[in-house]
Amino acid sequence: MEGYRILEVKQSVFDNNNRAADALREDLKKDRTFLLNLMSSPGSGKTTTLRRTIAALKDEFRIGVMEADIDSDVDAATIEQTGVKVIQLHTGGMCHLDAGMTRQGLEGLGIENVDLAILENIGNLVCPAEFDTGAVKNATILSVPEGHDKPLKYPLMYTVCDALVINKIDVLPYFDFDMEKVVEYARMRNPKIEIFPISAKTGEGVDAWVDWLRRQTNAFIGK
Amino acid sequence: MEGYRILEVKQSVFDNNNRAADALREDLKKDRTFLLNLMSSPGSGKTTTLRRTIAALKDEFRIGVMEADIDSDVDAATIEQTGVKVIQLHTGGMCHLDAGMTRQGLEGLGIENVDLAILENIGNLVCPAEFDTGAVKNATILSVPEGHDKPLKYPLMYTVCDALVINKIDVLPYFDFDMEKVVEYARMRNPKIEIFPISAKTGEGVDAWVDWLRRQTNAFIGK
Repeated sequence: MEGYRILEVKQSVFDNNNRAADALREDLKKDRTFLLNLMSSPGSGKTTTLRRTIAALKDEFRIGVMEADIDSDVDAATIEQTGVKVIQLHTGGMCHLDAGMTRQGLEGLGIENVDLAILENIGNLVCPAEFDTGAVKNATILSVPEGHDKPLKYPLMYTVCDALVINKIDVLPYFDFDMEKVVEYARMRNPKIEIFPISAKTGEGVDAWVDWLRRQTNAFIGK
Repeated sequence: MEGYRILEVKQSVFDNNNRAADALREDLKKDRTFLLNLMSSPGSGKTTTLRRTIAALKDEFRIGVMEADIDSDVDAATIEQTGVKVIQLHTGGMCHLDAGMTRQGLEGLGIENVDLAILENIGNLVCPAEFDTGAVKNATILSVPEGHDKPLKYPLMYTVCDALVINKIDVLPYFDFDMEKVVEYARMRNPKIEIFPISAKTGEGVDAWVDWLRRQTNAFIGK
């Protein structure tokens, strides 16, 4: 028997998603649960990055993970092996999660004993950026093979994110990826964005990303 | 002065997109213009594949390209260098094109003198798969760094596509990408899908893909 549940989340009944998102953040503050919304293209390495992140932080925080997907549960099965609490959210074809769906997910996960909740959003650079999930911080992963022009082509994603993880730096020699340009383009969208070049595969650079997430979580839950 | 126009396409007024798509295909048949809808994740190499495809076919067909994007025109500027007719479509934040928007794009492009029209859809594996654009054939590109599990996670994209281009095979040695599995998973979604492993960078495998597109175009325009 698999150790994770699958929850079909429904589109929100709230007509004002921003208000629902603010209300969710207030409740998270009361519950002392930090919520990170992790977004990216398909195949940029969200799940592998998450496994590294969990391995680094699971002795410090009680972690819960929500894996959003159209209808598979490949990622929940992978994350379950890390030993943290995990739930699979199925959106039934929807390309994003809104704050109401995220709240349903958190209720399904059960956050009483969770310090750090992570939402692995649908692999998509457009729709997830348009809906505030109620997360305390937003992060996006851009992998080297995708190219350094992505902040030009998907501006909103970079505008709404607090952190940019540049993954797969181990394959930099095989791609025409300009690190200076991607930093310049990302900062055009959000001058305050924090940028972490990493290889989730080799572990290079992961410490700086984990330190940032640790500081954000501690600041929010008052540890 | 740049040689391409930028057109802001508006969401369709048609309440029945499938009917609008069928009507567009009928008009394309009358006009003897084949339309390919090319979809993929961000960064999978749509534009580079398109450049290779244009180079191989521009002496045989009069080609027109529609570059859809949220609001940049990086790709239109690149495609314009190939010397074919190109128009940039801005969707104003929308994550897909429907048949009405595609028709606006074709009218903006002007298809009287076009045999082969190619729509480079928004980089997204979810929304574009849900809307019939009116294209004669649909193709998707999956690049090796994205991983072989994508047909499990984005089922509809693979169900609606006639062809799957597996790009960036030149970097196969650096990724854990299982070619047999991706073929198996893609055929679970669509047993008839045609699969073309290529490297748009080196040109390897491009001939087979181009041959397929040539046959489809000739069959439709009756050449």
